[in-house]
Amino acid sequence: MSDRVSEGVTRGETSGEPAGARPGGGAGSAYLLERAWVGGAVRDDVLVTIADGVFTSVTPGIRNPRIADEASLAKREFHRPGGETPVPPTRLPGLTLPGLANCHSHAFHRALRGRTQRGGGTFWTWREQMYDVAGRLDPDSLFALARATYREMAAAGVTSVGEFHYLHHGSDGTPYDDPNTMGAALVAAADAAGVRLCLLDTCYLSSGFGEPPQGVQRRFADRDVDAWAERAAGLGADLVGRDGVVVGAAAHSVRAVPRSALPVVAGSARATGRPLHVHVSEQVAENDACHAAYGLTPTQVLAEAGALGPRTTAVHATHLTGGDVALLGASGTHACLCPTTERDLGDGIGPARALHEAGSPLTLGSDSHAVIDLFEEARAVELDERLATRRRGHFSAGELLAAATVTGHRSLGFDDAGEIAPGRRADLVVVSLDGPATAGTGADEHTAVFAATVADVVQVMVDGRWVVAPGDRAEVARELTAAVAAVWEE
Amino acid sequence: MSDRVSEGVTRGETSGEPAGARPGGGAGSAYLLERAWVGGAVRDDVLVTIADGVFTSVTPGIRNPRIADEASLAKREFHRPGGETPVPPTRLPGLTLPGLANCHSHAFHRALRGRTQRGGGTFWTWREQMYDVAGRLDPDSLFALARATYREMAAAGVTSVGEFHYLHHGSDGTPYDDPNTMGAALVAAADAAGVRLCLLDTCYLSSGFGEPPQGVQRRFADRDVDAWAERAAGLGADLVGRDGVVVGAAAHSVRAVPRSALPVVAGSARATGRPLHVHVSEQVAENDACHAAYGLTPTQVLAEAGALGPRTTAVHATHLTGGDVALLGASGTHACLCPTTERDLGDGIGPARALHEAGSPLTLGSDSHAVIDLFEEARAVELDERLATRRRGHFSAGELLAAATVTGHRSLGFDDAGEIAPGRRADLVVVSLDGPATAGTGADEHTAVFAATVADVVQVMVDGRWVVAPGDRAEVARELTAAVAAVWEE
Repeated sequence: MSDRVSEGVTRGETSGEPAGARPGGGAGSAYLLERAWVGGAVRDDVLVTIADGVFTSVTPGIRNPRIADEASLAKREFHRPGGETPVPPTRLPGLTLPGLANCHSHAFHRALRGRTQRGGGTFWTWREQMYDVAGRLDPDSLFALARATYREMAAAGVTSVGEFHYLHHGSDGTPYDDPNTMGAALVAAADAAGVRLCLLDTCYLSSGFGEPPQGVQRRFADRDVDAWAERAAGLGADLVGRDGVVVGAAAHSVRAVPRSALPVVAGSARATGRPLHVHVSEQVAENDACHAAYGLTPTQVLAEAGALGPRTTAVHATHLTGGDVALLGASGTHACLCPTTERDLGDGIGPARALHEAGSPLTLGSDSHAVIDLFEEARAVELDERLATRRRGHFSAGELLAAATVTGHRSLGFDDAGEIAPGRRADLVVVSLDGPATAGTGADEHTAVFAATVADVVQVMVDGRWVVAPGDRAEVARELTAAVAAVWEE
Repeated sequence: MSDRVSEGVTRGETSGEPAGARPGGGAGSAYLLERAWVGGAVRDDVLVTIADGVFTSVTPGIRNPRIADEASLAKREFHRPGGETPVPPTRLPGLTLPGLANCHSHAFHRALRGRTQRGGGTFWTWREQMYDVAGRLDPDSLFALARATYREMAAAGVTSVGEFHYLHHGSDGTPYDDPNTMGAALVAAADAAGVRLCLLDTCYLSSGFGEPPQGVQRRFADRDVDAWAERAAGLGADLVGRDGVVVGAAAHSVRAVPRSALPVVAGSARATGRPLHVHVSEQVAENDACHAAYGLTPTQVLAEAGALGPRTTAVHATHLTGGDVALLGASGTHACLCPTTERDLGDGIGPARALHEAGSPLTLGSDSHAVIDLFEEARAVELDERLATRRRGHFSAGELLAAATVTGHRSLGFDDAGEIAPGRRADLVVVSLDGPATAGTGADEHTAVFAATVADVVQVMVDGRWVVAPGDRAEVARELTAAVAAVWEE
């Protein structure tokens, strides 16, 4: 693994930042943002200063400084740490957003884009194709594919990823010598791509309700829930103190984690205060089987296990009863919507607005990566609700932008990210207002949510370091091409 | 108008084409397409030769010619018309598609992108915002906005546009001195943008069923159906023999054209063999009002008027009965789906597969231009059907690509376009396989339909002339920004 980790150390060096500008040390910097989403509104002429990867000041309304004024502006507003010469801020045109959080990722699914759309079938036949890829990967090819996928995300403005990771063991189910080799590959991949990672180490014990894992599912499965807990604790211990990495827990679903084991998974997350994620009611068939097995909905099973609460995220939450919505909302459980995947897999349209009103904070994920574009996910929440209700305007653009940024980050355990505010992690996502999609659209949060696409993202900063610069997209694509080809050629 | 028309003549001059390469004359050219959609499949190494704006030969499987081989390749395969020196073909990397047809456009709605998404409401409250823009435009501002919008379309690979045009008169309803001034502005705008135009001159006589036009609707309305027919015939006569322009007819809807007038509109289109388009059952309220007025569905009213048939396009066709689907299918009436608009306006999901199976050829439109991306429209047809049915794979990528290209062109009266084939109009849309969205996705029709976005379109040829070159997107955006700002500042 050491070569993979050392590759990660180079991140940020394509930036215009001084080489010393790393989190935890180095010189500060300052930017004058033409327009930026600050404090729940778009503000003009926002001066931000950054030191040690954190915003040290955020000041909107610095009026149109000309070159001639910059020295005095710099003197008035900030000094580089160390206090020597004041330096002028770098101006960033466009609309600058906080970092986006992609709260539900299976990185390896990126190899399926454009391929799994070839036939017909259902969610369940799609799953067979996905299992084919899952069976092909080893730690090196997973690292390469995940790094390329995370770079695609970084280029899309994603600064934190929630990776729902269940590809634990060798392809026949035998653990690697280091049983967390695959998880470590994902951590290294995120590091190399320059994004933060919440690694949701996923408990997967059964195929359906009570059947042993079959075929490639053996890669996913630990011996029992205690073996899962022990392995996951080991991964957590290895990564203690590593900035930009959170180790959370996941129960794959009520299909894959028996009712008796769910309290162990939930308790493990609760004991450490870490995020807990779980697929919930993505498919009607899961609801039916759960009812047949337990006489309860999946949400009721999770509630019984003590698995709901403000550190928990219910992923998809598509086919819910009114009672399920009330349980999720009253407990403050996040709901992670993945609408482009839910379209692609024919899942259906979940009760997004009802969840929001019941008290579930909403987050977004690109899940199967048929599309990686959180602007598209954000507007799809609203647009699919329109299709379901034939009314417009269920969510404000600001609510959807909060889901994509601060709420998403909180659900991944990065409570200190997702806002352009003093003391927060210094993430900046610069969206061009000079592209055909965004031109003439008002240059505010509606532009971000209802007009922008990833092609409009020109520069991305994570923790004070530029990880995506204009023109990086071709390099990202080359890496993706190679990593996907390697999977299919094996 | 002469200044606007003369601006149009400059189209194509940003290309690498010899200045003489115009439709109807000039030298030929040749391209070797790395991959291309030809004859219903993606083929490698396709040599195309072009003269007078038309493909003169299309030869797949020309193997990997190296620079050293190009002279002999050129000698073997083609000569420039005139027969002097053979020239080597220009190689075009990527996936090349036929020209896309955007079959339902209201160009001026582009000014609403990112703005009409601000509030809640319904289709009917959205319409108030749209009317606000409709009231602000004059021939010059319509020309500027339409030219910029058509340029955005050209950059998205659109080579023909169906413009559903009802903004006929001055803002108080008084006809301009030339009663077709606004239509002529649209023709000039398409010419300036380098795209072909099917101008669907729209009959609009009443507000709702039997009420006189109100407010800005007076801009849309002719005195009666005969006045509409006379004005539309005048426009058609002005444009006789103009290559790249078709004047078709439209009945706005059964709300806006009384039952007694519909046969006149339908007969006028039928007599000249020109396309007839009509909004059909976009909203449930329209169906209800139609039933209250006539005891019939809108489709039944159109059938009774003789308005259905293979030259007709039913736009939206969202809320249909089984009988409506059968009427549309049996008559071979096209159905133009506009799914990104139907999402934005909360219209609902129409019976796309049922229409296709009943015999209605499907086409695509970006309509309100909340999004201009026909790849997104194509996949949305499939994805929204998945949301409605919870099954995958209703349409093949090839079927959706046919809707976006050859079928769309036919519905606009350009029967000689939309295919890379000898004798067809020489349109080429070059899609990059080296972007983050398309990388690793298989480089075939699934890439086009399920992975590509407009940002992957690098070069576009219309009728043998390059109208979009790499790097043109910034200029397109500048023009959009100026044109939209002018509307809102008035």
